[in-house]
Amino acid sequence: VRAAWSTDILLAIDREAPHTLRGQLEGQLREAMATGRLAAGTVLPSTRELAACLELSRGVVVEAYEQLAAEGWIVSKRGSGTRVAKRARVPATAEPPQSPAATYRFDFKPGLPHAESFPRRAWAGCLRDAALHATAAQLGYPDPRGDEGARVALARYLARARAVVAHPSCVVMCSGFTQAIDLIARVWVERGMSRVAIEQPGFVGLATHLNRLGLQVLPVPVDREGLDPRQLERSGAQAVILAPAHQFPTGAVLSAARRVRLAAWARERGAWIVEDDYDAEFRYEAEPLPALQGSAPGHTIYVGTASKLLSPALRLGWVVAPEPLVGALALMKRRVDRGGSSIDQIALGRFVEDGLLDRHLKRCRGAYRRRRDTLLAALSRWGFVDEVMGAAAGLHVMVRLRRDVDEERVVAEARRAGLRVFGGAAYRQGGVAGAPALVLGYGAIAENDIDAAVAALAAVVRRCGADDARAAAREADSSDDVAVCR
Amino acid sequence: VRAAWSTDILLAIDREAPHTLRGQLEGQLREAMATGRLAAGTVLPSTRELAACLELSRGVVVEAYEQLAAEGWIVSKRGSGTRVAKRARVPATAEPPQSPAATYRFDFKPGLPHAESFPRRAWAGCLRDAALHATAAQLGYPDPRGDEGARVALARYLARARAVVAHPSCVVMCSGFTQAIDLIARVWVERGMSRVAIEQPGFVGLATHLNRLGLQVLPVPVDREGLDPRQLERSGAQAVILAPAHQFPTGAVLSAARRVRLAAWARERGAWIVEDDYDAEFRYEAEPLPALQGSAPGHTIYVGTASKLLSPALRLGWVVAPEPLVGALALMKRRVDRGGSSIDQIALGRFVEDGLLDRHLKRCRGAYRRRRDTLLAALSRWGFVDEVMGAAAGLHVMVRLRRDVDEERVVAEARRAGLRVFGGAAYRQGGVAGAPALVLGYGAIAENDIDAAVAALAAVVRRCGADDARAAAREADSSDDVAVCR
Repeated sequence: VRAAWSTDILLAIDREAPHTLRGQLEGQLREAMATGRLAAGTVLPSTRELAACLELSRGVVVEAYEQLAAEGWIVSKRGSGTRVAKRARVPATAEPPQSPAATYRFDFKPGLPHAESFPRRAWAGCLRDAALHATAAQLGYPDPRGDEGARVALARYLARARAVVAHPSCVVMCSGFTQAIDLIARVWVERGMSRVAIEQPGFVGLATHLNRLGLQVLPVPVDREGLDPRQLERSGAQAVILAPAHQFPTGAVLSAARRVRLAAWARERGAWIVEDDYDAEFRYEAEPLPALQGSAPGHTIYVGTASKLLSPALRLGWVVAPEPLVGALALMKRRVDRGGSSIDQIALGRFVEDGLLDRHLKRCRGAYRRRRDTLLAALSRWGFVDEVMGAAAGLHVMVRLRRDVDEERVVAEARRAGLRVFGGAAYRQGGVAGAPALVLGYGAIAENDIDAAVAALAAVVRRCGADDARAAAREADSSDDVAVCR
Repeated sequence: VRAAWSTDILLAIDREAPHTLRGQLEGQLREAMATGRLAAGTVLPSTRELAACLELSRGVVVEAYEQLAAEGWIVSKRGSGTRVAKRARVPATAEPPQSPAATYRFDFKPGLPHAESFPRRAWAGCLRDAALHATAAQLGYPDPRGDEGARVALARYLARARAVVAHPSCVVMCSGFTQAIDLIARVWVERGMSRVAIEQPGFVGLATHLNRLGLQVLPVPVDREGLDPRQLERSGAQAVILAPAHQFPTGAVLSAARRVRLAAWARERGAWIVEDDYDAEFRYEAEPLPALQGSAPGHTIYVGTASKLLSPALRLGWVVAPEPLVGALALMKRRVDRGGSSIDQIALGRFVEDGLLDRHLKRCRGAYRRRRDTLLAALSRWGFVDEVMGAAAGLHVMVRLRRDVDEERVVAEARRAGLRVFGGAAYRQGGVAGAPALVLGYGAIAENDIDAAVAALAAVVRRCGADDARAAAREADSSDDVAVCR
């Protein structure tokens, strides 16, 4: 048996087999094209090359190619060599992608930055430089905490922009908030921790994931001042996960008094605070709020992400952990995936150090502020909401509807009208009841569309007053994806 | 209180505070520089800009800057603006990185491709194109299975090069073998599975990780024909993880008879086979071996990785799973990190589709074959090994030493002599005894160094014959990192 590997087409010729050599070669190529192993357009090796690899005479290969060409399987052209023909059976592996995503006329999905604002050129340049200039060590297996240069850059950035007390050795890079929580929670479980508080309302997927890891999840109510520390104290939680700068989805800002009380709670109980700082860089008028981490650096695990700052497609996040926890998190990161892409991390480090992130955020803040102002003006013009919350920062607002409006029906009818909106219920753990509300993200929607979208939404809400039955709501399309993702 | 956010330096001015406005500004800037929140070289906003943000008169900011300049904290230059001075205290966050990695004269660490061979230009180009041309959808949250185009490209490549039966919808991209195992094992645990077989000798870190997830790990012996299926059948395992094409570290190739038996075992018991196809693309003379997956596609979970083909720094891997398992793996991927970087995946898809991977592998195969030949020639010239195993493929060989040689002492003394080698014991689960052996990786060592390195190793082995005490071995540097990583 002699086999060819050279062009990564797996062919094997057996001189003891009953079939002719040409027949074997033809048959294997034909089968490879029929099953899609060789896709249409694929360049075949030259007859000389293939003959050499298989230790066949070139004539045998030439004859096989001629036969396959005659059958229409392959096409030869001067200059571009021999290729699998377009009319060869479309391989099973090339089926068109299913597109399950419903398309909406207007999309108020929260938690998404505007794709148009992604700084393609700057990011492409940083990626390119990283790939061209990475050292041999950087091309090996990574430090599970992440590239040293990137951690230094992030520590500096977080210190000046978020007042985070961060030494680079305490930074652990990860692939976003979701992985940060997975790493942290798994360390907790291995250390025997069992009770974790989360915000109610909040990010429902988080509770599900923590539950599956074996943690007991304790929802603690959020009001206008953020998470209620008295209820946290009573809950018996050993840790809490919260977003103090801009709570999701209410937009509440944790008050100064509660910050102090939360820090004291963590110190007295030896508890952990996980600070989810997902969109704090986008603040439009209120005073900037330093990260909570600075108030209790020994008890706070700070989590940031590029998902809102740049794009969720990058899967770049960072954890700043107190020293006693860093080693355990780094080891867990090593166990679960050995670390993140060094190239991506080097690119991020450069993007931050060269001031490109500052420049990008400055531009984005202007654009998002204009979009938010347009949204607030439209909400006021079309007048169907009782209150707008969380408008000082971030990429979404929460609006309260009149008490008599059926939230579930509004969401269902809005979607039927081509408007993607999410109701407050989508963020309440355990199906708890709440006043009717909508969460309106303005990250993904174009500024010019906002007024028309709000007008359409106003019409839907008006139709969904207290009068009608709730029948329509039952038909609601429940197949939509989760309300928000990090 | 009025605060500036514009250049991402967090400053707050309180008009009710007892200190002057200028004093407040100066004090906060001074503190930021002293603590490293503002690092040396950082550009400060212009006086006009800062004054506007803080709603101060420009004169106040000018005076504060002049005072700080007089103290040597900041430096103003025409054209390049005002910067934090170099002689300002080196911030705590800028400490030089520790370099814990010992340096060796010659490095036989297995499992590492040669960094010099990384196709920087081609990869940089693919990354750049991906960032410049990603669609708005691709810049959103990713499909947890990975970018569609990348999955189509991989399915085609695996079909033609590895004879893997793969539909793109059954491909789940991940960040390497380690994450693939984490995802698979967590799905198994949630489905109530408990007993998993691994190869003995094998990759010890794997057993530890599986154990921590709550799985019972059953080591099954590997001989010259690969994993022994009779012992697997007796073990009561519900799944097995193995590398049939080139076992790690013995280099054994699973024989045809055992392939058939293993596939039958999986079908009869409804068991899972995880095929670790980590370096099968590097085969130098033996017949190419199609992936085992093709023999039992309904029971095999195929795992591949770019770590050996390109670089472990990319953290790119792929799983091809039977249809009943794909959904669960995709959901698990979504839970643990929401999916991989779309940009990296798009780049990989293009790299594969444009034939750049084929070209790269062709070049690498030639280079590695030459290096392997040099290694084999040197081993034969310096004549201190009884047998060389696994030389037909991959990036390492395993060599048996004479029975009377103390393996532990050889490893320790070699390291003292600047040679990084790993002994067979590093790959045996549970401290089982074995004949003295070394694993020699030739991926990372330069071709020109090989002969000198083997000569030095021969001298060490000669010194470590049966005559001496084993005392030296006890002093062995046990702080080195794990023997191999994926």
